[in-house]
Amino acid sequence: MERRTRLKVSRHSWKSAQPSSKENDQMSELISALFRPKSIALVGASADVDKHSALPQKHLTQHGYPGTIFPINPRRDVVLGLKAYPKVSEVPEQVEHAYIMLPTEHVLSAVEDCIAAKVRCVTIMSNGFSEAGIDGMARQEKLLGMLKGSQTRLLGPNALGVVDVHAQVALSANEVLSLSELPAGDVSLISQSGSLLGAILSRGVALGIGFSKLVSVGNEADISVAELVEMMVDDPQTQVIQLFLETIRSPAALRRAAMKAHEANKPILAYRLGRSAIGQHLAVSHTGALTGNGKATSAFLRDIGIVELFNFEALLDAPALFRHGRGTGARIGVMSTTGGGGALIVDNMGERNIDVVSPSLEMQAGLARKGIHISDAPLVDLTLTGTNPATYGAVLSAFVDSPDIDAVVAVVGSSSQFRPDRAVSPIVSIQTSKPLAVFLTPNAERSRKLLRDAGVAVFSQPEACADALSAWARWQAPRQHSDSCAVVVTALDGHEPGQTLSSVDSQNVLASLGIPQVQEWTLSAEPATWLGETVEQIQFPCVLKISSASIPHKTEVGGVKLGIANVNELRHEAQNMLVRINATLPDAFIEGFQVQEMVRGLGEALVGYSHDPAVGPVISVGLGGVLAELYQDVSIRPAPVSPQEARKMITEVKAFAQFSGYRNLPLGDLDALADVVAKMSTLAKCANAQVAEAEINPLAILAKGQGVRALDGLVVLGELPAASHNA
Amino acid sequence: MERRTRLKVSRHSWKSAQPSSKENDQMSELISALFRPKSIALVGASADVDKHSALPQKHLTQHGYPGTIFPINPRRDVVLGLKAYPKVSEVPEQVEHAYIMLPTEHVLSAVEDCIAAKVRCVTIMSNGFSEAGIDGMARQEKLLGMLKGSQTRLLGPNALGVVDVHAQVALSANEVLSLSELPAGDVSLISQSGSLLGAILSRGVALGIGFSKLVSVGNEADISVAELVEMMVDDPQTQVIQLFLETIRSPAALRRAAMKAHEANKPILAYRLGRSAIGQHLAVSHTGALTGNGKATSAFLRDIGIVELFNFEALLDAPALFRHGRGTGARIGVMSTTGGGGALIVDNMGERNIDVVSPSLEMQAGLARKGIHISDAPLVDLTLTGTNPATYGAVLSAFVDSPDIDAVVAVVGSSSQFRPDRAVSPIVSIQTSKPLAVFLTPNAERSRKLLRDAGVAVFSQPEACADALSAWARWQAPRQHSDSCAVVVTALDGHEPGQTLSSVDSQNVLASLGIPQVQEWTLSAEPATWLGETVEQIQFPCVLKISSASIPHKTEVGGVKLGIANVNELRHEAQNMLVRINATLPDAFIEGFQVQEMVRGLGEALVGYSHDPAVGPVISVGLGGVLAELYQDVSIRPAPVSPQEARKMITEVKAFAQFSGYRNLPLGDLDALADVVAKMSTLAKCANAQVAEAEINPLAILAKGQGVRALDGLVVLGELPAASHNA
Repeated sequence: MERRTRLKVSRHSWKSAQPSSKENDQMSELISALFRPKSIALVGASADVDKHSALPQKHLTQHGYPGTIFPINPRRDVVLGLKAYPKVSEVPEQVEHAYIMLPTEHVLSAVEDCIAAKVRCVTIMSNGFSEAGIDGMARQEKLLGMLKGSQTRLLGPNALGVVDVHAQVALSANEVLSLSELPAGDVSLISQSGSLLGAILSRGVALGIGFSKLVSVGNEADISVAELVEMMVDDPQTQVIQLFLETIRSPAALRRAAMKAHEANKPILAYRLGRSAIGQHLAVSHTGALTGNGKATSAFLRDIGIVELFNFEALLDAPALFRHGRGTGARIGVMSTTGGGGALIVDNMGERNIDVVSPSLEMQAGLARKGIHISDAPLVDLTLTGTNPATYGAVLSAFVDSPDIDAVVAVVGSSSQFRPDRAVSPIVSIQTSKPLAVFLTPNAERSRKLLRDAGVAVFSQPEACADALSAWARWQAPRQHSDSCAVVVTALDGHEPGQTLSSVDSQNVLASLGIPQVQEWTLSAEPATWLGETVEQIQFPCVLKISSASIPHKTEVGGVKLGIANVNELRHEAQNMLVRINATLPDAFIEGFQVQEMVRGLGEALVGYSHDPAVGPVISVGLGGVLAELYQDVSIRPAPVSPQEARKMITEVKAFAQFSGYRNLPLGDLDALADVVAKMSTLAKCANAQVAEAEINPLAILAKGQGVRALDGLVVLGELPAASHNA
Repeated sequence: MERRTRLKVSRHSWKSAQPSSKENDQMSELISALFRPKSIALVGASADVDKHSALPQKHLTQHGYPGTIFPINPRRDVVLGLKAYPKVSEVPEQVEHAYIMLPTEHVLSAVEDCIAAKVRCVTIMSNGFSEAGIDGMARQEKLLGMLKGSQTRLLGPNALGVVDVHAQVALSANEVLSLSELPAGDVSLISQSGSLLGAILSRGVALGIGFSKLVSVGNEADISVAELVEMMVDDPQTQVIQLFLETIRSPAALRRAAMKAHEANKPILAYRLGRSAIGQHLAVSHTGALTGNGKATSAFLRDIGIVELFNFEALLDAPALFRHGRGTGARIGVMSTTGGGGALIVDNMGERNIDVVSPSLEMQAGLARKGIHISDAPLVDLTLTGTNPATYGAVLSAFVDSPDIDAVVAVVGSSSQFRPDRAVSPIVSIQTSKPLAVFLTPNAERSRKLLRDAGVAVFSQPEACADALSAWARWQAPRQHSDSCAVVVTALDGHEPGQTLSSVDSQNVLASLGIPQVQEWTLSAEPATWLGETVEQIQFPCVLKISSASIPHKTEVGGVKLGIANVNELRHEAQNMLVRINATLPDAFIEGFQVQEMVRGLGEALVGYSHDPAVGPVISVGLGGVLAELYQDVSIRPAPVSPQEARKMITEVKAFAQFSGYRNLPLGDLDALADVVAKMSTLAKCANAQVAEAEINPLAILAKGQGVRALDGLVVLGELPAASHNA
């Protein structure tokens, strides 16, 4: 109930995103034109069945499209048995959806013609736009200019089209539509890759998985993934939304759409290309998309409640696992008729750090009363006795009824191939509101179908099963961003866009955010003249450093002295230092001395803020130093974050375990660290400048209760206008 | 050629493992009796077709067993149409192989009867032996005692049986054998899990993959995985050996068998349970096997040339990739008809750190001369033009002919489902000696079959494809262990088995191996009396420590002083220390002082030696300190290792990058570290004691050329007799 309440507040805060009733009407009209138009024009339809441009007409007809098809081909009167027209505007009836498959150079005039003919929706399959270098980008800009002010909306360019299985609309050149039958279901797929949309559909059909709608979005010049997600939230024939992503093009809109899906209890599952460095590189060259840091994108998806799958097959098998919503915990129970098969699952879960739990004493006792004796291992291995339906059913019931288990994996071995009546039948008939995953060890098509038809998530790859459960365990509601208004950081005034601030200016900016800095005092080059007042402020022990532009490497000439205990020692060491340096570098101009509070931290952190090109402002925290870099041990989130969220980030950094009680090591002030992370993250709301990058490196972590201190910092201003990503 | 030569040397060194001609005869006789016996007794055969004990007879008959079956059942004259006998010894003909499926308590007497009847091979399906607690272990010991001196060899107990597809022998109760047809192939599977053997066979049959022999080994009381591997090396119908492992029971024998397989150019692929901590735990409870550290087992397999797969499906799809042997490099080229499908592979390879390379300029130029223009990205994306067989074939030829590419992945998109004549046909017909993997994005059964029949490795899961290629890239020849004789470590004499040596004794042992220690000197509690001679040996700067059994935490009472520069300072600090301690702890008995060379290392390493319960002596190296523990960043190998091998181990530890040029940081003496690792690893050859565990923690790494110093060490003696694992 609490979640619901929070969501209502959230919805309120997104007031601008609340569609008016007129917008609602426009939306539903667009959905009709996009997915189930009464009439379709196929622009560039070929009569040669071996050509790709003949396929949409073939697919529409084959799958029983109930509307009217108008082939557009100026060189023919008839195309594959239908009367053809030279252009859309010459079709005697209103065309709702035009599908354009012309060579690049003819696309713009065709679109112009569609706009003139008041076509509601245009899909451009042709490529040669933003994915094709500077010329292509210019062409796409021109296209958008033409659409402006018109009633025509655009899918693509470079989009393979749409399929609405329930409405028998197969508007795509995708060869997979040659399949004789497409089973209908309640999962809709939105894909940035047209070819992989085909692959997913093909695999789904082979597994007997039905779909509702499938959309290949291409370059998303107009209709975006985010807008399509909103449409699927409103679509009564869609219960689960799947995304195949190569990049994120409109993070703010996707956040709003994901929030809406969450309110409607429709899970969104995503598989994403570009997780590895080389994959990111390819995503850029393949789609012309801006891709950011893969980790930032993963963090963003998680933050907005979209669950990411890392196994390709899991995308197909997982939906049923997510229908029952999120659990209150993520304790997984595993039972099996085969020790080896069960271990295969448990081992894969262990590798993904999933919490597989042993059955409770109550559960063991309850089953013992029925004459079934199970061990308290994290795998309940029934062996051959488990192929008795009564036994398997009783244990499964105990699992789904146990208050100590949040989700169940039921493994069935060889009996599933030839004897579904044994261990599979009790799974088919069980009633539960808990997520239930089934892994079948052999190739067991009949059992798979029985389970799928009963709405059970059934897996044939152990990795897919563990990945889906791991995703379910990680799945969280969209994080509520605080709605506080923009922040003015006056310390940023007077600096130019694109400028890298000096060390002192950077520290001023960080200090103005309330981030504790190490204290520094400046003293003259003549220790004898130091007045009581100046040196009285110094906190001991301190560090003394020579200040001279001619001495870049102070340590090497004895220009740094640590651990000075009092004023006398300070004066004494300063005089010694002058003598020493005068002996080795007689020509050096000494500006004076820099005295720094001596900070004895338990360790060092790095706190970073940046503008990710794909998902916008992100904040990160990790251990400072070279090891952190080598291990890539950082936690990352869309900015801003609350101190509570920052505290969660800190628990995600492995290295910080050493400051939170690991092996009885002294505790570090991780609350103070969290506070700094949260403060730094407010740069995302900065109104008077656009911060491209900011970093505290290192930030000394002191003992619990003693805070943290920034020892060095850096701020870089962006070239972009402020708040472009916060729209 | 060089590899061959090395192997001959190797073969020589394993002289004891060279079978005599009599042993050869025995081996081939055993192979006959095990896999293709002329007569089989089914002990405990049931006439009730719903019982498991009726299945072997059903399976043998169904798959056309050409020999004679004797059901053994004292209560029936006929079982499922065949004359039954009360016991094996009453069968009028010689029984070659007896398959026992009696309740546990009747097994031993049945085996006794088989021995009396001179049965060559007995398979025990019954459980209740070493996997079933202390009683079971005792029962297994008794069984082995009975077999001693007899001609009878044993498979199991707890073994599901054997299948020889070529010989039409399906001697197993495994339900998967209800399949009407088993395609024959040249891959043989040896499995420690009977049920997963069934699962693999079932999946293989569904994919059209043929097998040669399949063996479920059970508890390996007599016939071991290692011995079966040797049999498969000798088997002309086996070209690739697959292992499904839960533990390693005889590491030395497996090493010899793997060496033999390597010489015969027969790759061994393994999938292993127990990679995660929880999985290891299960492996213990499930099979009663001793499992060691999962990492040690992986290191062991790699060391002996067995390639480990981490994806279950990859086990089925990978064999064809390994037929062409190891490459000289591991540069992978990827081509595709679909950008998304290609990126799916490249991304998965990137996550596994596989080196995907862009086509060379020569290759680009060569193709350009044929009018085919490809980019120099690490994915050659031909898009739809690639579905032209001539284009796809030309590019594929360029890939397999390129001297800069060691293995090729060819991806085919939607055309593979309905039009194998397009991009798939040129793959089917290509002639190459390079490993070639194919990934098909849709469900494309026809293409898959065409490719499989042509001997091409074809994958339908991107993870399986990347896993198999990653395994191929890691695959190495068995490491040649030096054949030097045992080492006597006299410093270990006089200590009891099971004893943990004192710090000083441990350091003596390490020093006697030639491992450089930090220097230490002992001084009396009266600084005024220190003689010139004693203190003259001290190297400055040094560290001064109070030596007192009553002061466990020296630092807290000011009992440690670092960075002492000379003798005067040393005396002065010692006197101050006495005063200080006398003031706070007037009752402490001061034994004297410990003076230590002050080592300023660039960092610290941990070098560990231990006896892994599964694979025997292993050596490991990683970064010292708490972070190393948190990140588990260690390299591990079976011991002993040469300094060269130790140097390779060091490159596998991420953290050590900071000492080998990363970001221009000062170089550390990693050669000296390697030398210490190699010296420590010789403990595996220690003849006068069994070292269970030894550790140097920390070992200071000094700058390049300045060596390393052990700062602390620990040696624990084992309870086991020396060299038990080095047999």
